Amino acid sequence: MKTTTEKISEAVVRRLPVYLRYLTELLTNGVQTVSSQDLGRRLDLNPAQIRKDLAYFGDFGKKGIGYDVEYLIEKIRQILKLDRDIAVALVGAGNLGKALSNYNVYLNDNMRIVALFDSHPSTVGTHINNLAVQPMEEMSDSVKQLHVRVGIITVPGSEAQKVADDLVQAGVEAILSFAPAIIKVKEGVRVHYADFTTELQSLAFYLE
Amino acid sequence: MKTTTEKISEAVVRRLPVYLRYLTELLTNGVQTVSSQDLGRRLDLNPAQIRKDLAYFGDFGKKGIGYDVEYLIEKIRQILKLDRDIAVALVGAGNLGKALSNYNVYLNDNMRIVALFDSHPSTVGTHINNLAVQPMEEMSDSVKQLHVRVGIITVPGSEAQKVADDLVQAGVEAILSFAPAIIKVKEGVRVHYADFTTELQSLAFYLE
Repeated sequence: MKTTTEKISEAVVRRLPVYLRYLTELLTNGVQTVSSQDLGRRLDLNPAQIRKDLAYFGDFGKKGIGYDVEYLIEKIRQILKLDRDIAVALVGAGNLGKALSNYNVYLNDNMRIVALFDSHPSTVGTHINNLAVQPMEEMSDSVKQLHVRVGIITVPGSEAQKVADDLVQAGVEAILSFAPAIIKVKEGVRVHYADFTTELQSLAFYLE
Repeated sequence: MKTTTEKISEAVVRRLPVYLRYLTELLTNGVQTVSSQDLGRRLDLNPAQIRKDLAYFGDFGKKGIGYDVEYLIEKIRQILKLDRDIAVALVGAGNLGKALSNYNVYLNDNMRIVALFDSHPSTVGTHINNLAVQPMEEMSDSVKQLHVRVGIITVPGSEAQKVADDLVQAGVEAILSFAPAIIKVKEGVRVHYADFTTELQSLAFYLE
């Protein structure tokens, strides 16, 4: 492997979970090998691009045969660090938070939302998919206790920075924010934005 | 301008709405000019990157002064085609659909969700932000009637392709899908994916 975290572009890292999902589907259907052409056709990607992406991490494919599905799944899981337990906390149990909690079933066994927090007294104590919504005051202690490494922020933009500060203070190493706000964190903490408005606005660009 | 839709990378197109949001914030606060350094500091981007992004579209900045905020907003809106009316339809009025409907307030006046559809009899007829949820059977006619150009899909993965087919058939030109499924559409229709699971899995990669 010629891999270091620094060298691999974000675009490649973002495609790996897409490969993983389709490969898992193939495995479930009993498919043992897949070619980059098959992957490309199904995922609407250039096969050469796929081969290049996967070559970053080692020499997985066999000429004329393709990739061993099970082996490739294992490798991608290792690369994405999904072979270890990763506890996730979600802050903001409104409609969006509820919707995201439902995605727990799509995440793999190792990466799971283990705690929910909200500031509204009417929401605190309710259950979403068997998890009780905790008050914000318990966030810091719970995050430490449950060894939460990833935080999901689904609070209004005006509250996002404060929540991020508290999460990072409690030990969270990576944040996925759905709030329409730029978040500042200390060096070493990774923030990704899942921003509906910018997604939609950038889509407008491609209209004729 | 040296612009054509084809030549500009998706990464640049995705940054433009981010610039737009911050510039709008500046304008609201009465700020008239901004430097690429200021923009970079606030948005955690390299100022040279920002200058390069904006130079794609013309020579906006003035040396030693920076960018005229109002002019730059107007230009980015033109580039993103947000200066025209764009009607958006949302299909799937569950928790996620409800949450996204609430974002209408963050979208600008020209790009708005104008119709909601759902297949559940208990959801049809309810109102979300003053819009009635319509049955799927009305989708095709309503999309044509309202000149909907963008569709948002928030239905389960298994239903996504059928919904996309119907939207495209009715004239939709671009789709933002939150469903965990690959969607196939005819040439010329743009599909973007906002996939929570892949977002979260790619974030795991950056954990130590």
